[in-house]
Amino acid sequence: MATRTTAAPSATDSLLIVGAENAGVLTQIADASSLSLDDAAARLRDARRVFVLGAGRSGLALRMTAMRLMHLGLDVHVVGETTTPAICNGDVLLVASGSGTTAAIVRAAGTAAAAGADIIAMTTAPESPLAELSQVTVVIPAAQKQDHDGQHSAQYAGSLFEQAVLSAGDAIFHTLWKASGATAEELWLRHANLE
Amino acid sequence: MATRTTAAPSATDSLLIVGAENAGVLTQIADASSLSLDDAAARLRDARRVFVLGAGRSGLALRMTAMRLMHLGLDVHVVGETTTPAICNGDVLLVASGSGTTAAIVRAAGTAAAAGADIIAMTTAPESPLAELSQVTVVIPAAQKQDHDGQHSAQYAGSLFEQAVLSAGDAIFHTLWKASGATAEELWLRHANLE
Amino acid sequence: MATRTTAAPSATDSLLIVGAENAGVLTQIADASSLSLDDAAARLRDARRVFVLGAGRSGLALRMTAMRLMHLGLDVHVVGETTTPAICNGDVLLVASGSGTTAAIVRAAGTAAAAGADIIAMTTAPESPLAELSQVTVVIPAAQKQDHDGQHSAQYAGSLFEQAVLSAGDAIFHTLWKASGATAEELWLRHANLE
Amino acid sequence: MATRTTAAPSATDSLLIVGAENAGVLTQIADASSLSLDDAAARLRDARRVFVLGAGRSGLALRMTAMRLMHLGLDVHVVGETTTPAICNGDVLLVASGSGTTAAIVRAAGTAAAAGADIIAMTTAPESPLAELSQVTVVIPAAQKQDHDGQHSAQYAGSLFEQAVLSAGDAIFHTLWKASGATAEELWLRHANLE
Repeated sequence: MATRTTAAPSATDSLLIVGAENAGVLTQIADASSLSLDDAAARLRDARRVFVLGAGRSGLALRMTAMRLMHLGLDVHVVGETTTPAICNGDVLLVASGSGTTAAIVRAAGTAAAAGADIIAMTTAPESPLAELSQVTVVIPAAQKQDHDGQHSAQYAGSLFEQAVLSAGDAIFHTLWKASGATAEELWLRHANLE
Repeated sequence: MATRTTAAPSATDSLLIVGAENAGVLTQIADASSLSLDDAAARLRDARRVFVLGAGRSGLALRMTAMRLMHLGLDVHVVGETTTPAICNGDVLLVASGSGTTAAIVRAAGTAAAAGADIIAMTTAPESPLAELSQVTVVIPAAQKQDHDGQHSAQYAGSLFEQAVLSAGDAIFHTLWKASGATAEELWLRHANLE
Repeated sequence: MATRTTAAPSATDSLLIVGAENAGVLTQIADASSLSLDDAAARLRDARRVFVLGAGRSGLALRMTAMRLMHLGLDVHVVGETTTPAICNGDVLLVASGSGTTAAIVRAAGTAAAAGADIIAMTTAPESPLAELSQVTVVIPAAQKQDHDGQHSAQYAGSLFEQAVLSAGDAIFHTLWKASGATAEELWLRHANLE
Repeated sequence: MATRTTAAPSATDSLLIVGAENAGVLTQIADASSLSLDDAAARLRDARRVFVLGAGRSGLALRMTAMRLMHLGLDVHVVGETTTPAICNGDVLLVASGSGTTAAIVRAAGTAAAAGADIIAMTTAPESPLAELSQVTVVIPAAQKQDHDGQHSAQYAGSLFEQAVLSAGDAIFHTLWKASGATAEELWLRHANLE
């Protein structure tokens, strides 16, 4: 009699999978990219303006970081939103791409580099075209979007990478916030008040 | 001589704080909201259409979930985007609010309920107005946006809540995906191809 | 035998209807709101920062204006986008609502006023709650969204109003641009370069 | 003595310039693209799904059209928004580019064509790469974004083109609406109700 041997996990099982995979990848980032993370934080703090760019869910994760950096008082723009201007010399582009080869992302990074901006890349691939264009590479040893073999993560496509982009962005923010000496109440005053 | 006794954490220290706080909150969700998570997954799967809504970073985290549910083949809309229609009977609203009291969010949930839609809420507050309007409440025991005392989390404002919204959304997706029997390659065909 | 006496217009017929209605409403605005338009232009030019807000298609029309004001070098934010901060004293809110009673819009305008920002409203209704909150009201004598009787316009709902919001915004921009003395080439350098 | 002979126009003067330029270009579209407009309307009506795409202000104008087509009951997606899926055979891409050469737009149109979708282009350039990829070209004889000589329009860059994209989109909608026999009240039920 044929039996279905692998039942689908409950949502709680899945949550524990997500949690375990994140714990693993964050430890690996801490081990391997410690200097990069601090370098990224310092460059964001000192940038004339910060631009963030990512495709799909990576882009949404970076928008979460962008919002926090605005709360901190930085001048931050999301590529593709209405009032985002041209990137120039002295600006920093924070960009995420699992593979480091997403064509539109690599093209944009090339434009930013040619304009004189510095680039901070979050990617799984330290040898990728995106990493080569970047002053700082935060290596996130997770699956890329097109790794469908389940070898690096049981989760679908780049999910683990995208979760780690959020954690890395929030870690950079946390460090900048604590170093700034500003209180939570001071940041709170910058939160959007017309929605 | 006055000395600064607490130095700012390095970005790696911050990453480990983020990781530890997430591990803790995910375990608590798994303990306390196990049935809610599976109930949420089942209702999303069976919905005529899914709408997602959240303010600020909670909304961005839910957009990440919305994109995945689209990859799975569901009919999903983000409130506030251009072609999102009216919510109706048979639809499900997935909504996130740390406090469960954000005025615009509670108003929208009330409208959705009046239109006959079911509501799934992610919130820290199981007794909140938002939770009362909801068929399913996924309780996330993290700080709310305006908890500035650092008691529930060392991170700023609702950061831990927003990170957990992403994890919970991705866990629900993972369970629905595995239960669907679809391969990663099948989902991949639905990824946006014009960006 | 029953016959269908009114055939649907061809798309060209429709284009001529759109054109004629716009010509009419722009003449009326020029007659009735001449001082308001120049006042609006001056306040936008002198604002510390400009925020734009509108629901649905009115909001999209204002985003088109917001992008141009950014090209001109102003510091402009779209309410609801990721890095839009809190509005404060010295800022200007440019807002559009056909009826002048859209609840979320009036609430936001009230918040902006309480924060000390000036308000410029585009509306069909000079006696509306929105107009009363505003320092400048540009009256656009077109149908509102819920005028379904076809009396003010053959077009659907607020279409004519929304088209006029775009024209009025572009007129304000044109005046500010010409008064600035900047060349087109100078503005061009500010156009987004990473998309 | 050097004198400044050309004062900046008042905002009302500018509004009349905008109005006159639009009246002119809409007449030209009606003369030259009459069949294309009706062809575009028919293809949008019969499409499995409609996708819209444009850069900058052209994209915002098309979003206004996309919202209306949703109100009419079509299945419409904006390229770049969160839940927009892959374009496929049987879908229609409505795209606008003044020059018809914007690299990202032409690439996307090529992808859409390769996937078997039909393309409707609004452009000033009937011989452009974009027009060549398209089944229907609506020619809008206005300035392109990089025409800075003021020959085709006194307005900045592609402003007149973008205004005409809105008018052409609204004309197509008006025809489809009238042909559908639906009342304004029926369409109104589809308007977003959670904002």
